Amino acid sequence: MRIIIAGFGTVGQGFAEVLHNKADMLPVKVVAAFDSKSYAADSNGLDPLALVERKKRTGAVGDHGLTGGTDVMDDVDYDVLVEVSPTNIEDGGAGLRHIEHALKRGKDVITVNKGPLALKFRELSRLAEKKKALLRFEGSVGGAMPIINLCRENLKGERVRSIRGIFNGTCNFILSRMDNGLPFEQALKEAQQLGYAESDPTYDIEGIDAACKVVILANSIFRRNVTFSDVSITGITSVSAEAIALAADRGMVIRLIGEVSDKTLEVSPRLVPKGHPLSISGTLNTARILTDLAGPITVSGKGAGRIETASAILSDLMAIMDRRR
Amino acid sequence: MRIIIAGFGTVGQGFAEVLHNKADMLPVKVVAAFDSKSYAADSNGLDPLALVERKKRTGAVGDHGLTGGTDVMDDVDYDVLVEVSPTNIEDGGAGLRHIEHALKRGKDVITVNKGPLALKFRELSRLAEKKKALLRFEGSVGGAMPIINLCRENLKGERVRSIRGIFNGTCNFILSRMDNGLPFEQALKEAQQLGYAESDPTYDIEGIDAACKVVILANSIFRRNVTFSDVSITGITSVSAEAIALAADRGMVIRLIGEVSDKTLEVSPRLVPKGHPLSISGTLNTARILTDLAGPITVSGKGAGRIETASAILSDLMAIMDRRR
Repeated sequence: MRIIIAGFGTVGQGFAEVLHNKADMLPVKVVAAFDSKSYAADSNGLDPLALVERKKRTGAVGDHGLTGGTDVMDDVDYDVLVEVSPTNIEDGGAGLRHIEHALKRGKDVITVNKGPLALKFRELSRLAEKKKALLRFEGSVGGAMPIINLCRENLKGERVRSIRGIFNGTCNFILSRMDNGLPFEQALKEAQQLGYAESDPTYDIEGIDAACKVVILANSIFRRNVTFSDVSITGITSVSAEAIALAADRGMVIRLIGEVSDKTLEVSPRLVPKGHPLSISGTLNTARILTDLAGPITVSGKGAGRIETASAILSDLMAIMDRRR
Repeated sequence: MRIIIAGFGTVGQGFAEVLHNKADMLPVKVVAAFDSKSYAADSNGLDPLALVERKKRTGAVGDHGLTGGTDVMDDVDYDVLVEVSPTNIEDGGAGLRHIEHALKRGKDVITVNKGPLALKFRELSRLAEKKKALLRFEGSVGGAMPIINLCRENLKGERVRSIRGIFNGTCNFILSRMDNGLPFEQALKEAQQLGYAESDPTYDIEGIDAACKVVILANSIFRRNVTFSDVSITGITSVSAEAIALAADRGMVIRLIGEVSDKTLEVSPRLVPKGHPLSISGTLNTARILTDLAGPITVSGKGAGRIETASAILSDLMAIMDRRR
């Protein structure tokens, strides 16, 4: 199975390392990899670890200047596109172009890129269906927490009534630290120092990241046709130390909860009783899936991280290998 | 797809109801059903709900006296055996005979019957492989909690390092009630009154049920070759109110934990810090799956119940339909 890796930041590098470490069980060749400026390609297969080393040393994954990702995709024979370029929620950015390009040619696609999925899910899944291509995106919601394939495959016979969850580890870390008495600004600074939050934390703390995930769940599991702008979003910047102290007095914590059902599409800080599955602390993601037969099923796992996200991509890759066998 | 339902107790009836309720999405015919004394068969398909009604009214699923389940299986053309007859952990009982009979003929099997799986897993999975039959058993561990297929399929690329969990809802209910100050005997009585515990509760409270599940996980996920007698088992009958009070003083609870890894195979009451994923109260089952890439993934769900267990069977049935398409 021949793979192109589109995007070679943290997740792309993590995935390359996983391919190296699991080479025994994966009959897979990386035939091309590109980042925003450069590319490497070899129809005999590139050494994934050498790509990571070059990227770390030179800042570029390949020797060749990139005119456009789709040019590389046109020049190389491949089976699966692994799209892990940076998220762009304005217009889907290069990631959207790469995914469309691959699907139009009947190539299977794995992505964790939330932009294209939050903006164009319906179009992309129709295109995949028409071209008999597989479009998989387990890692786009909750990182290593199993949820998309669990709902769409393992729980295929169930009617999922609602999903409520913690879909942003950065916010959860900040709120957990505020439980310990830290003011918001200090908790945010700590999250930044630990690498959990970006220097511009807007995307996380304003609830935008969680909203993208809620949209992906709505479209892929509830078969809705919504985009980012349909979500009612409140971030955590207005959560005060006083509110957290008041909640604690009542045996509650405040968590940023995403909720999706046939009718709901919301991200907001909510009161959660201590001990409830959604009261967890730290950077974990968790989701409570309510179905007609199984009742409530709760899952949790690491919502981000180089290798954790790569593990979700690996899960999709193994499923594609299984399908295409 | 033609199904035989072997065993028509709580779970068999629950599954029949699910087949009735989900008839639109399931191109499935029940061509035979039998319990310990009787059977019903019709190659054009039986009405699942009529079977449930007859069983409730007369105590028998069919009009015909049963000579043996395998006789029915010989007389009827079918594709999938759903084996849900009572668990026998001495020698696997009739359930083991039914499963072997089906697999030998290359028929796919879904079971939640812990006896055959805990005693003869290796033999049964080899037989299935040889005959290119599918043997699926999601509901045998943790009821509606997703774990077997999650580990074997979704997490196929991962190395599962260990699984620790609460695999018996009855014990967990009793221990949770003891957290509230009830002595063991009274908590047990309450569990019996609520229908969570049998009148002879040995199988649950001595850890036997949890041990069967640990064996199934060891063989199916860790590729070990162990049986029930290999498990180090301590039940909850020796857990005193004093021990629970002492634990509470230290911010801990006592839970019956099953643990399995390449080296471990154990069921015992353990101290768990309050707030830890394995400290949950009530009848839920939960498991913490530790893998090489994803890190810890925690799942929880209803460990028992008519419809909940049927939901796990449905999940396996949909997977078989997908495979055989």
